[in-house]
Amino acid sequence: MDAPSSIITLTTDFGLDDFFVGAMKGVILSINPSITIVDITHTIRPHDIRDAAFTLAQAYGEFPSGTIHVVVVDPGVGSSRKPILLTTSRYAFIGPDNGVFSFIYAEEEIEHIIHITADQYFRQPISQTFHGRDIFAPTAAWLSKGIDPTCFGPPLTDVVKFDLPRPRAISPTHVRGHVIHIDRFGNLITNLTSKDVPPEAARSGTRFIINDHTITRFQSHFAEAPPGEPFAILGSTGRWEIAINQDSAAERLNASVDTPIDVIKT
Amino acid sequence: MDAPSSIITLTTDFGLDDFFVGAMKGVILSINPSITIVDITHTIRPHDIRDAAFTLAQAYGEFPSGTIHVVVVDPGVGSSRKPILLTTSRYAFIGPDNGVFSFIYAEEEIEHIIHITADQYFRQPISQTFHGRDIFAPTAAWLSKGIDPTCFGPPLTDVVKFDLPRPRAISPTHVRGHVIHIDRFGNLITNLTSKDVPPEAARSGTRFIINDHTITRFQSHFAEAPPGEPFAILGSTGRWEIAINQDSAAERLNASVDTPIDVIKT
Amino acid sequence: MDAPSSIITLTTDFGLDDFFVGAMKGVILSINPSITIVDITHTIRPHDIRDAAFTLAQAYGEFPSGTIHVVVVDPGVGSSRKPILLTTSRYAFIGPDNGVFSFIYAEEEIEHIIHITADQYFRQPISQTFHGRDIFAPTAAWLSKGIDPTCFGPPLTDVVKFDLPRPRAISPTHVRGHVIHIDRFGNLITNLTSKDVPPEAARSGTRFIINDHTITRFQSHFAEAPPGEPFAILGSTGRWEIAINQDSAAERLNASVDTPIDVIKT
Repeated sequence: MDAPSSIITLTTDFGLDDFFVGAMKGVILSINPSITIVDITHTIRPHDIRDAAFTLAQAYGEFPSGTIHVVVVDPGVGSSRKPILLTTSRYAFIGPDNGVFSFIYAEEEIEHIIHITADQYFRQPISQTFHGRDIFAPTAAWLSKGIDPTCFGPPLTDVVKFDLPRPRAISPTHVRGHVIHIDRFGNLITNLTSKDVPPEAARSGTRFIINDHTITRFQSHFAEAPPGEPFAILGSTGRWEIAINQDSAAERLNASVDTPIDVIKT
Repeated sequence: MDAPSSIITLTTDFGLDDFFVGAMKGVILSINPSITIVDITHTIRPHDIRDAAFTLAQAYGEFPSGTIHVVVVDPGVGSSRKPILLTTSRYAFIGPDNGVFSFIYAEEEIEHIIHITADQYFRQPISQTFHGRDIFAPTAAWLSKGIDPTCFGPPLTDVVKFDLPRPRAISPTHVRGHVIHIDRFGNLITNLTSKDVPPEAARSGTRFIINDHTITRFQSHFAEAPPGEPFAILGSTGRWEIAINQDSAAERLNASVDTPIDVIKT
Repeated sequence: MDAPSSIITLTTDFGLDDFFVGAMKGVILSINPSITIVDITHTIRPHDIRDAAFTLAQAYGEFPSGTIHVVVVDPGVGSSRKPILLTTSRYAFIGPDNGVFSFIYAEEEIEHIIHITADQYFRQPISQTFHGRDIFAPTAAWLSKGIDPTCFGPPLTDVVKFDLPRPRAISPTHVRGHVIHIDRFGNLITNLTSKDVPPEAARSGTRFIINDHTITRFQSHFAEAPPGEPFAILGSTGRWEIAINQDSAAERLNASVDTPIDVIKT
């Protein structure tokens, strides 16, 4: 990693109603008062490691080189799951070794994977239920002060990754993908990219089928779509989305994360 | 506008659960790492341009001179609606030309209205569905670095404004206003100001009528009102509000945005 | 208090949907543009002074010396309840004199209690319904600029405190406590600490009884507990909690704030 920037991002399932996020920020600022802390989100569905991994993957690359990304979606807190620190050429990532960094392993070249054990950097006493405050926050803050990543513990080789949801070719003209995220507007973000379904599909009779609904309309943006009619759109994350103009495609099509979506090309 | 301060505010309907806000902040900080980003709110009701306009109007004037206010409530993203940049003597405003700045046009003297077209400042590639990240965030960040407003594109003369909801005199003793916002506490904020109903009305038998409920009680603050009884109060935005002490006037009076409220003066 | 740091924290019941928090931040930044503002939470249940006091108590001590903690849960705004400023050796606290600082009085040695009256520091005009913006925010900002605490008004001796919920010994082997907070995960945080029930209780047949459910399982962390079975855990705030692995103990045990919890020691 380059020299750390003065930015730490937080992605957690702690919600916004409790003292958890405030306590983490206090710990960070006590160690490095000049840091800038940016909330990615704190409302990952409780314990939803896959959604945390997806959300981090959509945001981390927008930040300047040197940013430290902390993820605390950690149902195994206090168990034998390891606290880890990764570095790439541009960023550091800190969190539990439970799969939340699966997209990072797939997309980035990893420089270091460290098992965080250097408890001289931890908040004391260390609770068994709030490592966000006691381990991850202070490790991020000390890293931002210029402590070398290798000082936080020994290297690790084996880490936990979940299989990224990949589309599957059923036949030369049939690809099956899945919904991987539903956003605030009810848009269905799929794991289908322009590699699976090229942008030109919009002009060639390609169909998307989801829960027995066949979608043949393509749009390049939301506003011109007729009300109530679902359409396919190549979204801002580079993935195909199914959306309805000013309505929730998730509700209208009764879809949720993991719902299959079939693409029939012609 | 004065020299830009180091503050950018954000008002959006992106919600807090997704990666959208984090991605915008990453883009801004990549261009200007020393900026202070302040969230006004990210939970404007999806696509509710009028509420975004109202919320901005209540907050923008509290910020120091040089603050850049970014609003992204943008159902027309990707269509022919224009991205614009306004400046007044104190502030800059950046967002879609869809009416979100209607209160600014009414309340401020505008120095520049710029159609944002200078794509050398945009994030590449530009999506058709997330101009918050790709156009508005980087434009705000470059403006905060001192780029002159006129460098972002050509001047515009015609902009989209919606009619501000104005009270109407039905007779010399009868004014009709409307609810324009309901706050977290269920208080009904109306478009009636002290110009329509002077503070002295509290001592003169003036009545407010909303949904067949007649309100004759006036309070100068919340705490002394008897429980359960609605009252009128000149609120912190300079507008008359209908409230119930520690209860929701919106629920009790079955009122919502646009519900008419009649004032009978004596 | 030491010299003020450059940090102000905010704990309010204003919610995140309205302009209230943004307006407060604008006022603060207009006075001290280089301050760091940290949100503890803005979603205290409306008017819930006790929960505000609890939340502040869990977070304030994590912040660096010199931090100014502002609390605005203020159902008596505009009435005769006083705006106050407290200092301890490490921190300042600003908010209404309504009990929100009850834990601070119990846990800290107080240096100054000031009745905030120096209206040259207030935002003008002062509304009767939004002292967060008009009194508390500007007082905090001026304090952060180095104005001496005694300049904000005369000393106060009598302040409002509520009785902290303390466990009660029913017999030498029976202690009765209460639920004092329910967190996002549905964990029940009680007022029982290791002074009431030592950590060794886990090995000695101690039982917790709540709403006719008897709990004999103890865990040191969440992950190893069998699904669906409630257990006791000494939590990160130093208090005993009743939890269920990846489920809501509050829902399963039908418990809420103030629900009694009995401990039978053997």
